[in-house]
Amino acid sequence: MNPLDLSLYLVTDQSLSKGRTHEYIVAEAVKGGVTVVQLREKNISSREFYELAKALMLIVKPLGIPLIINDRLDIALAVDADGLHIGQSDLPYEVARKLLGKNKIIGLSIETIEQAWEANKLDVDYIGLSPVFSTNTKLDINTPLELSGVKKIAGFTKHKTVAIGGINNENAESIISSGADGIAVVSAIVSHDNPQQAASELKAIIDKVK
Amino acid sequence: MNPLDLSLYLVTDQSLSKGRTHEYIVAEAVKGGVTVVQLREKNISSREFYELAKALMLIVKPLGIPLIINDRLDIALAVDADGLHIGQSDLPYEVARKLLGKNKIIGLSIETIEQAWEANKLDVDYIGLSPVFSTNTKLDINTPLELSGVKKIAGFTKHKTVAIGGINNENAESIISSGADGIAVVSAIVSHDNPQQAASELKAIIDKVK
Repeated sequence: MNPLDLSLYLVTDQSLSKGRTHEYIVAEAVKGGVTVVQLREKNISSREFYELAKALMLIVKPLGIPLIINDRLDIALAVDADGLHIGQSDLPYEVARKLLGKNKIIGLSIETIEQAWEANKLDVDYIGLSPVFSTNTKLDINTPLELSGVKKIAGFTKHKTVAIGGINNENAESIISSGADGIAVVSAIVSHDNPQQAASELKAIIDKVK
Repeated sequence: MNPLDLSLYLVTDQSLSKGRTHEYIVAEAVKGGVTVVQLREKNISSREFYELAKALMLIVKPLGIPLIINDRLDIALAVDADGLHIGQSDLPYEVARKLLGKNKIIGLSIETIEQAWEANKLDVDYIGLSPVFSTNTKLDINTPLELSGVKKIAGFTKHKTVAIGGINNENAESIISSGADGIAVVSAIVSHDNPQQAASELKAIIDKVK
Protein backbone atom coordinates (compact mmCIF):
# COMPACT_ATOMS: atom_id res chain seq x y z
CA MET A 1 0.00 0.00 0.00
CA ASN A 2 1.17 3.55 -0.69
CA PRO A 3 2.08 5.77 2.26
CA LEU A 4 -1.08 7.21 3.79
CA ASP A 5 -1.91 10.56 2.18
CA LEU A 6 -4.36 12.38 4.43
CA SER A 7 -4.42 15.60 2.33
CA LEU A 8 -8.11 15.53 1.45
CA TYR A 9 -10.14 13.14 3.54
CA LEU A 10 -13.82 12.72 2.68
CA VAL A 11 -16.28 11.59 5.35
CA THR A 12 -19.63 10.49 3.97
CA ASP A 13 -22.98 11.54 5.34
CA GLN A 14 -26.12 10.32 3.65
CA SER A 15 -28.30 12.92 5.34
CA LEU A 16 -26.25 15.78 3.88
CA SER A 17 -25.93 14.37 0.36
CA LYS A 18 -29.13 15.96 -0.99
CA GLY A 19 -30.63 12.66 -2.07
CA ARG A 20 -27.59 11.60 -4.10
CA THR A 21 -26.11 8.17 -3.41
CA HIS A 22 -22.86 7.54 -1.59
CA GLU A 23 -21.57 5.85 -4.72
CA TYR A 24 -22.19 8.98 -6.79
CA ILE A 25 -20.67 11.35 -4.24
CA VAL A 26 -17.59 9.19 -3.72
CA ALA A 27 -17.04 8.52 -7.44
CA GLU A 28 -17.21 12.27 -8.16
CA ALA A 29 -15.13 13.27 -5.15
CA VAL A 30 -12.25 10.93 -5.98
CA LYS A 31 -12.18 12.31 -9.52
CA GLY A 32 -11.67 15.69 -7.87
CA GLY A 33 -8.70 14.56 -5.81
CA VAL A 34 -9.93 13.07 -2.53
CA THR A 35 -7.12 10.94 -1.04
CA VAL A 36 -9.02 9.00 1.66
CA VAL A 37 -12.70 8.05 1.99
CA GLN A 38 -14.36 7.30 5.31
CA LEU A 39 -17.76 5.64 5.38
CA ARG A 40 -19.66 6.80 8.43
CA GLU A 41 -23.15 5.50 9.06
CA LYS A 42 -25.13 5.43 12.26
CA ASN A 43 -28.73 4.51 11.63
CA ILE A 44 -28.74 1.79 9.02
CA SER A 45 -28.83 -1.97 9.41
CA SER A 46 -25.62 -3.99 9.40
CA ARG A 47 -26.64 -5.49 6.07
CA GLU A 48 -27.10 -2.06 4.47
CA PHE A 49 -23.80 -0.87 5.94
CA TYR A 50 -22.08 -3.95 4.56
CA GLU A 51 -23.59 -3.58 1.08
CA LEU A 52 -22.67 0.10 0.97
CA ALA A 53 -19.10 -0.57 2.07
CA LYS A 54 -18.77 -3.28 -0.59
CA ALA A 55 -20.04 -0.89 -3.26
CA LEU A 56 -17.58 1.83 -2.21
CA MET A 57 -14.69 -0.63 -2.18
CA LEU A 58 -15.40 -1.32 -5.86
CA ILE A 59 -15.03 2.39 -6.59
CA VAL A 60 -11.94 3.28 -4.56
CA LYS A 61 -9.89 0.08 -4.57
CA PRO A 62 -8.87 0.24 -8.25
CA LEU A 63 -7.71 3.82 -7.66
CA GLY A 64 -5.56 2.91 -4.66
CA ILE A 65 -7.58 5.22 -2.43
CA PRO A 66 -8.11 3.78 1.05
CA LEU A 67 -11.61 3.19 2.38
CA ILE A 68 -11.84 3.63 6.13
CA ILE A 69 -14.91 2.41 8.03
CA ASN A 70 -16.14 4.48 10.95
CA ASP A 71 -16.60 2.60 14.25
CA ARG A 72 -17.82 -0.74 12.86
CA LEU A 73 -14.88 -3.10 12.90
CA ASP A 74 -17.09 -5.96 11.73
CA ILE A 75 -17.96 -4.09 8.54
CA ALA A 76 -14.28 -3.27 7.98
CA LEU A 77 -13.42 -6.96 8.30
CA ALA A 78 -16.38 -8.08 6.21
CA VAL A 79 -15.37 -6.01 3.17
CA ASP A 80 -11.61 -6.12 3.84
CA ALA A 81 -11.56 -2.34 4.02
CA ASP A 82 -8.24 -0.54 4.29
CA GLY A 83 -8.89 0.67 7.79
CA LEU A 84 -11.05 1.69 10.69
CA HIS A 85 -11.66 5.03 12.31
CA ILE A 86 -12.52 4.93 16.00
CA GLY A 87 -13.75 7.62 18.33
CA GLN A 88 -13.37 7.85 22.07
CA SER A 89 -16.65 5.93 22.61
CA ASP A 90 -15.90 3.16 20.11
CA LEU A 91 -13.92 -0.05 20.67
CA PRO A 92 -10.65 0.48 22.55
CA TYR A 93 -7.68 0.95 20.22
CA GLU A 94 -5.80 -2.14 21.47
CA VAL A 95 -8.82 -4.37 20.77
CA ALA A 96 -9.25 -2.93 17.29
CA ARG A 97 -5.57 -3.39 16.46
CA LYS A 98 -5.56 -6.97 17.67
CA LEU A 99 -8.57 -7.87 15.52
CA LEU A 100 -7.53 -5.92 12.42
CA GLY A 101 -3.85 -6.76 12.40
CA LYS A 102 -0.82 -4.62 11.71
CA ASN A 103 -1.46 -3.98 8.04
CA LYS A 104 -4.67 -2.02 8.41
CA ILE A 105 -4.98 1.71 8.98
CA ILE A 106 -6.43 2.73 12.32
CA GLY A 107 -7.32 6.34 12.98
CA LEU A 108 -8.39 7.74 16.32
CA SER A 109 -10.46 10.85 17.01
CA ILE A 110 -8.87 13.29 19.40
CA GLU A 111 -11.11 15.88 21.02
CA THR A 112 -8.71 17.46 23.49
CA ILE A 113 -5.01 18.22 23.88
CA GLU A 114 -4.86 15.60 26.66
CA GLN A 115 -6.21 12.90 24.36
CA ALA A 116 -3.56 13.82 21.80
CA TRP A 117 -0.88 13.30 24.45
CA GLU A 118 -2.42 9.95 25.38
CA ALA A 119 -2.42 8.91 21.72
CA ASN A 120 1.36 9.25 21.63
CA LYS A 121 1.42 5.97 23.58
CA LEU A 122 -0.45 4.18 20.79
CA ASP A 123 0.71 3.07 17.35
CA VAL A 124 -2.36 4.47 15.56
CA ASP A 125 -1.79 5.45 11.93
CA TYR A 126 -3.23 8.91 12.32
CA ILE A 127 -5.25 11.05 14.68
CA GLY A 128 -8.32 13.04 13.70
CA LEU A 129 -8.49 16.44 15.39
CA SER A 130 -12.17 16.92 16.04
CA PRO A 131 -13.68 19.40 15.81
CA VAL A 132 -11.31 22.11 14.71
CA PHE A 133 -14.15 24.57 14.17
CA SER A 134 -17.79 24.33 15.22
CA THR A 135 -20.05 22.47 12.85
CA ASN A 136 -23.56 21.11 12.58
CA THR A 137 -22.55 17.73 11.17
CA LYS A 138 -22.08 15.76 14.33
CA LEU A 139 -24.38 15.83 17.32
CA ASP A 140 -21.83 15.07 20.01
CA ILE A 141 -19.72 18.14 19.69
CA ASN A 142 -16.94 19.09 22.06
CA THR A 143 -15.35 22.51 22.34
CA PRO A 144 -13.59 23.28 19.03
CA LEU A 145 -9.81 22.90 19.13
CA GLU A 146 -9.39 25.96 16.89
CA LEU A 147 -6.20 26.65 14.93
CA SER A 148 -4.30 27.12 18.17
CA GLY A 149 -5.16 23.56 19.20
CA VAL A 150 -4.07 22.19 15.83
CA LYS A 151 -0.75 24.02 16.10
CA LYS A 152 -0.19 22.79 19.64
CA ILE A 153 -0.95 19.14 18.79
CA ALA A 154 1.06 19.24 15.56
CA GLY A 155 3.97 20.41 17.70
CA PHE A 156 4.15 17.31 19.90
CA THR A 157 2.25 14.45 18.28
CA LYS A 158 4.19 11.60 16.73
CA HIS A 159 1.24 10.81 14.46
CA LYS A 160 -0.05 12.08 11.16
CA THR A 161 -2.99 14.41 11.70
CA VAL A 162 -6.16 15.29 9.88
CA ALA A 163 -8.43 18.06 11.13
CA ILE A 164 -12.22 17.92 10.85
CA GLY A 165 -15.12 20.23 11.58
CA GLY A 166 -16.37 23.26 9.73
CA ILE A 167 -13.61 23.24 7.12
CA ASN A 168 -14.25 24.90 3.75
CA ASN A 169 -12.47 26.76 0.93
CA GLU A 170 -12.01 29.82 3.12
CA ASN A 171 -10.23 28.19 6.05
CA ALA A 172 -8.61 25.08 4.51
CA GLU A 173 -5.29 26.84 3.96
CA SER A 174 -5.07 27.94 7.60
CA ILE A 175 -5.46 24.33 8.79
CA ILE A 176 -2.56 23.07 6.72
CA SER A 177 -0.46 26.11 7.65
CA SER A 178 -1.13 25.24 11.29
CA GLY A 179 0.61 21.91 10.81
CA ALA A 180 -2.15 19.39 10.02
CA ASP A 181 -1.30 16.82 7.35
CA GLY A 182 -4.74 17.02 5.89
CA ILE A 183 -8.29 18.22 6.13
CA ALA A 184 -11.37 16.08 6.51
CA VAL A 185 -14.63 17.39 5.17
CA VAL A 186 -18.23 16.29 5.07
CA SER A 187 -20.65 18.94 3.86
CA ALA A 188 -18.06 20.93 1.86
CA ILE A 189 -18.10 18.03 -0.58
CA VAL A 190 -21.21 15.91 -0.01
CA SER A 191 -23.59 18.88 0.06
CA HIS A 192 -21.91 20.68 -2.85
CA ASP A 193 -23.82 20.80 -6.14
CA ASN A 194 -20.69 19.56 -7.86
CA PRO A 195 -18.74 17.23 -5.52
CA GLN A 196 -15.92 16.77 -8.02
CA GLN A 197 -15.39 20.51 -8.36
CA ALA A 198 -15.61 20.97 -4.59
CA ALA A 199 -12.93 18.32 -4.06
CA SER A 200 -10.77 19.72 -6.82
CA GLU A 201 -10.85 23.25 -5.38
CA LEU A 202 -9.99 22.04 -1.87
CA LYS A 203 -7.19 19.86 -3.22
CA ALA A 204 -5.68 22.80 -5.10
CA ILE A 205 -5.66 24.89 -1.93
CA ILE A 206 -3.96 22.12 0.06
CA ASP A 207 -1.38 21.38 -2.64
CA LYS A 208 -0.49 25.07 -2.84
CA VAL A 209 0.32 25.27 0.88
CA LYS A 210 2.09 21.92 1.20
CA MET B 1 -17.98 -26.93 24.53
CA ASN B 2 -21.10 -28.81 25.63
CA PRO B 3 -23.81 -29.47 23.04
CA LEU B 4 -25.93 -26.36 22.58
CA ASP B 5 -28.91 -26.46 24.95
CA LEU B 6 -31.51 -23.98 23.74
CA SER B 7 -34.13 -24.89 26.38
CA LEU B 8 -34.34 -21.51 28.06
CA TYR B 9 -32.76 -18.71 26.07
CA LEU B 10 -32.64 -15.27 27.65
CA VAL B 11 -32.49 -12.16 25.46
CA THR B 12 -31.53 -9.02 27.33
CA ASP B 13 -33.31 -5.69 26.99
CA GLN B 14 -32.14 -2.78 29.10
CA SER B 15 -35.32 -0.79 28.49
CA LEU B 16 -37.49 -3.57 29.97
CA SER B 17 -35.27 -4.32 32.96
CA LYS B 18 -36.92 -1.80 35.30
CA GLY B 19 -33.69 0.01 36.03
CA ARG B 20 -31.79 -3.11 37.06
CA THR B 21 -28.46 -3.81 35.40
CA HIS B 22 -27.84 -6.49 32.78
CA GLU B 23 -25.32 -8.03 35.15
CA TYR B 24 -27.94 -8.40 37.88
CA ILE B 25 -30.63 -9.78 35.56
CA VAL B 26 -28.26 -12.28 33.94
CA ALA B 27 -26.70 -13.42 37.21
CA GLU B 28 -30.16 -14.06 38.68
CA ALA B 29 -31.55 -15.66 35.52
CA VAL B 30 -28.73 -18.17 35.19
CA LYS B 31 -29.24 -19.19 38.82
CA GLY B 32 -32.82 -19.95 37.79
CA GLY B 33 -31.80 -22.21 34.92
CA VAL B 34 -31.29 -20.11 31.78
CA THR B 35 -29.21 -22.15 29.30
CA VAL B 36 -28.20 -19.43 26.78
CA VAL B 37 -27.84 -15.66 27.14
CA GLN B 38 -28.09 -13.26 24.21
CA LEU B 39 -26.93 -9.69 24.60
CA ARG B 40 -29.01 -7.46 22.37
CA GLU B 41 -28.34 -3.74 22.31
CA LYS B 42 -29.29 -1.18 19.71
CA ASN B 43 -28.71 2.33 20.95
CA ILE B 44 -25.49 2.30 22.92
CA SER B 45 -21.95 3.12 21.83
CA SER B 46 -19.60 0.37 20.71
CA ARG B 47 -17.51 0.99 23.80
CA GLU B 48 -20.50 0.49 26.13
CA PHE B 49 -21.56 -2.60 24.20
CA TYR B 50 -18.05 -4.00 24.52
CA GLU B 51 -17.81 -3.29 28.25
CA LEU B 52 -21.22 -4.84 28.86
CA ALA B 53 -20.36 -7.96 26.86
CA LYS B 54 -17.09 -8.31 28.78
CA ALA B 55 -18.95 -8.04 32.10
CA LEU B 56 -21.50 -10.69 31.07
CA MET B 57 -18.75 -13.05 29.89
CA LEU B 58 -17.34 -12.97 33.41
CA ILE B 59 -20.71 -14.11 34.75
CA VAL B 60 -21.63 -16.85 32.27
CA LYS B 61 -18.27 -18.29 31.19
CA PRO B 62 -17.45 -20.01 34.52
CA LEU B 63 -20.91 -21.63 34.38
CA GLY B 64 -20.43 -22.96 30.84
CA ILE B 65 -23.43 -20.97 29.62
CA PRO B 66 -22.90 -19.51 26.14
CA LEU B 67 -23.09 -15.77 25.57
CA ILE B 68 -24.42 -14.89 22.14
CA ILE B 69 -24.06 -11.35 20.80
CA ASN B 70 -26.88 -9.95 18.69
CA ASP B 71 -25.88 -8.52 15.30
CA ARG B 72 -22.51 -7.05 16.26
CA LEU B 73 -19.85 -9.44 15.08
CA ASP B 74 -17.12 -7.03 16.14
CA ILE B 75 -18.31 -7.17 19.75
CA ALA B 76 -18.49 -10.96 19.58
CA LEU B 77 -14.89 -11.07 18.36
CA ALA B 78 -13.71 -8.44 20.80
CA VAL B 79 -14.88 -10.37 23.88
CA ASP B 80 -14.43 -13.85 22.35
CA ALA B 81 -18.13 -14.54 22.92
CA ASP B 82 -19.49 -18.00 22.24
CA GLY B 83 -21.55 -16.90 19.30
CA LEU B 84 -23.48 -14.41 17.23
CA HIS B 85 -27.15 -14.09 16.48
CA ILE B 86 -28.02 -12.53 13.15
CA GLY B 87 -31.31 -11.36 11.74
CA GLN B 88 -32.35 -11.02 8.12
CA SER B 89 -31.01 -7.45 7.98
CA ASP B 90 -27.69 -8.15 9.65
CA LEU B 91 -24.46 -9.38 8.05
CA PRO B 92 -24.98 -12.25 5.59
CA TYR B 93 -24.51 -15.66 7.23
CA GLU B 94 -21.58 -16.69 5.00
CA VAL B 95 -19.65 -13.53 5.92
CA ALA B 96 -20.30 -14.05 9.61
CA ARG B 97 -19.20 -17.68 9.48
CA LYS B 98 -16.03 -16.82 7.62
CA LEU B 99 -15.05 -14.18 10.18
CA LEU B 100 -16.08 -16.15 13.28
CA GLY B 101 -14.80 -19.56 12.29
CA LYS B 102 -16.32 -22.99 12.67
CA ASN B 103 -16.17 -23.20 16.44
CA LYS B 104 -18.54 -20.37 17.23
CA ILE B 105 -22.32 -20.61 17.47
CA ILE B 106 -24.27 -18.73 14.82
CA GLY B 107 -28.02 -18.39 15.10
CA LEU B 108 -30.27 -16.94 12.43
CA SER B 109 -33.69 -15.35 12.85
CA ILE B 110 -36.39 -16.85 10.67
CA GLU B 111 -39.54 -14.82 10.14
CA THR B 112 -41.33 -16.94 7.54
CA ILE B 113 -41.68 -20.58 6.49
CA GLU B 114 -39.76 -19.72 3.29
CA GLN B 115 -36.80 -18.38 5.26
CA ALA B 116 -36.77 -21.60 7.28
CA TRP B 117 -36.52 -23.58 4.03
CA GLU B 118 -33.70 -21.31 2.85
CA ALA B 119 -31.86 -21.85 6.13
CA ASN B 120 -31.68 -25.58 5.42
CA LYS B 121 -28.95 -24.68 2.91
CA LEU B 122 -26.83 -23.11 5.66
CA ASP B 123 -24.83 -24.70 8.45
CA VAL B 124 -26.15 -22.35 11.12
CA ASP B 125 -26.19 -23.77 14.64
CA TYR B 126 -29.81 -22.92 15.30
CA ILE B 127 -32.67 -20.89 13.94
CA GLY B 128 -34.76 -18.46 15.96
CA LEU B 129 -38.45 -18.54 15.04
CA SER B 130 -39.52 -14.96 15.34
CA PRO B 131 -42.07 -13.98 16.42
CA VAL B 132 -44.14 -16.97 17.44
CA PHE B 133 -46.75 -14.75 19.08
CA SER B 134 -47.21 -11.01 18.86
CA THR B 135 -45.15 -8.94 21.28
CA ASN B 136 -44.23 -5.39 22.09
CA THR B 137 -40.54 -6.03 22.58
CA LYS B 138 -39.26 -5.52 19.05
CA LEU B 139 -40.27 -2.72 16.74
CA ASP B 140 -39.85 -4.53 13.42
CA ILE B 141 -42.48 -7.19 13.86
CA ASN B 142 -43.60 -9.55 11.15
CA THR B 143 -46.77 -11.63 11.19
CA PRO B 144 -46.53 -14.12 14.07
CA LEU B 145 -45.70 -17.69 13.04
CA GLU B 146 -48.11 -19.07 15.68
CA LEU B 147 -47.90 -22.65 16.94
CA SER B 148 -48.87 -23.94 13.51
CA GLY B 149 -45.77 -22.30 12.01
CA VAL B 150 -43.52 -23.74 14.72
CA LYS B 151 -44.93 -27.24 14.05
CA LYS B 152 -44.48 -26.86 10.31
CA ILE B 153 -40.87 -25.65 10.59
CA ALA B 154 -39.96 -28.24 13.24
CA GLY B 155 -41.21 -30.84 10.75
CA PHE B 156 -38.70 -30.03 8.01
CA THR B 157 -35.81 -28.02 9.42
CA LYS B 158 -32.46 -29.68 9.92
CA HIS B 159 -31.57 -27.14 12.59
CA LYS B 160 -32.19 -26.76 16.27
CA THR B 161 -34.95 -24.23 16.89
CA VAL B 162 -35.78 -21.69 19.53
CA ALA B 163 -39.03 -19.73 19.40
CA ILE B 164 -39.32 -16.12 20.52
CA GLY B 165 -42.07 -13.58 20.92
CA GLY B 166 -44.75 -13.27 23.58
CA ILE B 167 -43.77 -16.45 25.43
CA ASN B 168 -44.70 -16.79 29.11
CA ASN B 169 -45.62 -19.39 31.74
CA GLU B 170 -49.03 -19.92 30.15
CA ASN B 171 -47.89 -20.79 26.62
CA ALA B 172 -44.32 -22.11 27.11
CA GLU B 173 -45.48 -25.73 27.23
CA SER B 174 -47.33 -25.42 23.90
CA ILE B 175 -44.16 -24.18 22.16
CA ILE B 176 -42.10 -27.17 23.23
CA SER B 177 -44.98 -29.53 22.44
CA SER B 178 -45.05 -28.02 18.96
CA GLY B 179 -41.50 -29.21 18.37
CA ALA B 180 -39.25 -26.26 19.27
CA ASP B 181 -36.05 -27.15 21.11
CA GLY B 182 -36.35 -24.15 23.34
CA ILE B 183 -38.03 -20.88 24.17
CA ALA B 184 -36.44 -17.46 24.10
CA VAL B 185 -37.81 -14.81 26.37
CA VAL B 186 -37.20 -11.17 27.07
CA SER B 187 -39.79 -9.54 29.30
CA ALA B 188 -40.92 -12.78 31.00
CA ILE B 189 -37.56 -12.71 32.77
CA VAL B 190 -36.05 -9.23 32.53
CA SER B 191 -39.26 -7.44 33.59
CA HIS B 192 -40.10 -9.94 36.34
CA ASP B 193 -39.72 -8.77 39.93
CA ASN B 194 -37.71 -11.93 40.59
CA PRO B 195 -35.76 -12.93 37.46
CA GLN B 196 -34.37 -16.06 39.13
CA GLN B 197 -37.83 -17.30 40.06
CA ALA B 198 -39.17 -16.42 36.59
CA ALA B 199 -36.40 -18.45 34.95
CA SER B 200 -36.83 -21.31 37.36
CA GLU B 201 -40.58 -21.56 36.70
CA LEU B 202 -40.10 -21.50 32.92
CA LYS B 203 -37.32 -24.08 33.13
CA ALA B 204 -39.53 -26.43 35.16
CA ILE B 205 -42.28 -26.18 32.53
CA ILE B 206 -39.83 -26.95 29.70
CA ASP B 207 -38.17 -29.82 31.54
CA LYS B 208 -41.58 -31.39 32.25
CA VAL B 209 -42.52 -31.47 28.54
CA LYS B 210 -39.14 -32.53 27.19
